[in-house]
Amino acid sequence: MRKEKIEELESIIDGFKTISKVKLYREAKFIKGEVYSCTLNNGKTITREKIVKNGKGGSASIVLPVTKDNNVILTVEPRVFSKRTVGIGIPAGYIEEGEDPYVAALRELEEETGYVPNKLISLGGFYQDMGCSSAYNETFIALDCEKKTNQHLDPGEYIKYFDCTYDEALELIDLGYIKGCNAIITLGKAKKYMKRGN
Amino acid sequence: MRKEKIEELESIIDGFKTISKVKLYREAKFIKGEVYSCTLNNGKTITREKIVKNGKGGSASIVLPVTKDNNVILTVEPRVFSKRTVGIGIPAGYIEEGEDPYVAALRELEEETGYVPNKLISLGGFYQDMGCSSAYNETFIALDCEKKTNQHLDPGEYIKYFDCTYDEALELIDLGYIKGCNAIITLGKAKKYMKRGN
Repeated sequence: MRKEKIEELESIIDGFKTISKVKLYREAKFIKGEVYSCTLNNGKTITREKIVKNGKGGSASIVLPVTKDNNVILTVEPRVFSKRTVGIGIPAGYIEEGEDPYVAALRELEEETGYVPNKLISLGGFYQDMGCSSAYNETFIALDCEKKTNQHLDPGEYIKYFDCTYDEALELIDLGYIKGCNAIITLGKAKKYMKRGN
Repeated sequence: MRKEKIEELESIIDGFKTISKVKLYREAKFIKGEVYSCTLNNGKTITREKIVKNGKGGSASIVLPVTKDNNVILTVEPRVFSKRTVGIGIPAGYIEEGEDPYVAALRELEEETGYVPNKLISLGGFYQDMGCSSAYNETFIALDCEKKTNQHLDPGEYIKYFDCTYDEALELIDLGYIKGCNAIITLGKAKKYMKRGN
């Protein structure tokens, strides 16, 4: 990993660190739990609770952007509940009601980075918390990305992106910088699309 | 993939399918949302909600058991919120307050399968939902496992296990049988410990 890229990353992380966290004693609006009684084919009945996010299942599109010069684009943002309080990952966002996961992937990629791909390829999906959630995350690789616009983030959303080679991104997993399942799984699946020596 | 193993798997899946699911209009006890106000190093303040499971962060130990004859042990259990309503994965369970993740891995492995390993090796951890949860799942490979006891499951817990080769387990990912991040990530990390030709 190039020393200057680690320094760039550390500098972004530094700005996004949580320096104080206060629990507010009010009801959560975004995260809710729902209770279901389920009868199985074997005749047993079980009770299970489901995580609901903003009234929905919380499925997301996750996208690994690859630029024309064969770098990948990673994102850095506050992840206040993680140990380091900052997360390094790849562009991602919730799929809206009835929205095509491809459309969500393109939207989130453009909003979070300003990059637009020439080709978007599905790499398949996965459940992130199968026992308690219906969230099924769809993963993509976005090829031949070009910077077209500025970021346009929601209020309260802070994301910086930075580029490195695919091999350096894998190294960031080994070094413990990339720790979220979305990025780990998508980077793994992307391998067959990455050019050798990159 | 051996035809008889797929048939065995389909038969287990069949028994665990959810045939009816009723939403109960009572407050969730296991899943809760908490609200936090966080100040970042850059001076901004953001509000984030956190998933809490049974009052805790919900970190789990995930363990891939490998038997003395070099098979892996997979688990099948009701996953009522997934599309197929049944999940194929590997032994896993929540880490108790103050518990060592190794201890949790051994306990869950024995409870869910009755197998005990000769050696338990950490494969590292990952966040399953970094934006909304502090849950950090620790993954392990359990080598030279031997069947020592019967399963001893909690009330309302239904798990059957079955064995196949490591390569067949990877095939089950490609075939869409294994869809949870816990099993996908752990099977990927386990590669270097699996003997060739298995």
